[in-house]
Amino acid sequence: LKPSPLTAAAFADFGDVIEMAGHASITINQGFAQRFNDLAGVDVAMEAGATNVSLFLGQPRPIPIAIKLMERHPLGNQAFIPLQDQPWLVLVCADVDDFASYRAFTASGKQGINYARNVWHHPLLVHDADSRFLIVDRKGPGNNLEEVWLADDFAFSLET
Amino acid sequence: LKPSPLTAAAFADFGDVIEMAGHASITINQGFAQRFNDLAGVDVAMEAGATNVSLFLGQPRPIPIAIKLMERHPLGNQAFIPLQDQPWLVLVCADVDDFASYRAFTASGKQGINYARNVWHHPLLVHDADSRFLIVDRKGPGNNLEEVWLADDFAFSLET
Repeated sequence: LKPSPLTAAAFADFGDVIEMAGHASITINQGFAQRFNDLAGVDVAMEAGATNVSLFLGQPRPIPIAIKLMERHPLGNQAFIPLQDQPWLVLVCADVDDFASYRAFTASGKQGINYARNVWHHPLLVHDADSRFLIVDRKGPGNNLEEVWLADDFAFSLET
Repeated sequence: LKPSPLTAAAFADFGDVIEMAGHASITINQGFAQRFNDLAGVDVAMEAGATNVSLFLGQPRPIPIAIKLMERHPLGNQAFIPLQDQPWLVLVCADVDDFASYRAFTASGKQGINYARNVWHHPLLVHDADSRFLIVDRKGPGNNLEEVWLADDFAFSLET
């Protein structure tokens, strides 16, 4: 599967692209800052959940990147914002068993993404060692992780 | 006022330092990531508030940085995470009228901070043009911004 450049329109079925481009801003802080407001749907309240702010330190996978599993979070959204200006990869699908439903994107280092609740996605995919990300997702009771391992004859690789 | 290096201990009265250093992590994503979990108290639910994820584009102020006002958010926390690995400045106080209560910090580019609800702080202070930050704060009804302009004979400058 070959990634295409990430755009808000192409990602709309899966969640939000967290970026300044394409969004209006308001001037704040006595003129010394622009605010691009409310860029991600935070949807964590189900089953007494709350917002969780975390950091991830990600490592690249061997190339070619073998796609063997997908995951989703039935109780909340999950946003990833890169903390270095380096491209990274996003892989989502509507139906884990339908290869035609998979979409791969190259995100720039100025693009975060927010997976909507229940959207199937691959775990974090980075090109560079020690890639840092800020995560906004859900904490609370209940099982918020569903993982599916793909059948051996279905697994595929992602072009990089 | 001269800033000192930001540490979690020195900032504890004002909120959280969002950083990997000093925090344990858990291994996730089949071994390809470390998660530093739950680093900021998100406190936005008062008066029907919700979590707001935004981006700020900040500009440096003229040097010496003249401190003329402070602000606080009576209905929620406010977290700032730098999106470039460059130092920035943090200024807080316990009592706007008591100069002895002011604390200034140099945050590294790998340190975010989270102002607890009602903590007096200065608007974003950066060294570099077009500094990008990810903000996690509150949206919702009610007035969540209180600003105080300092008296002319009280205003001071921040060393940089």
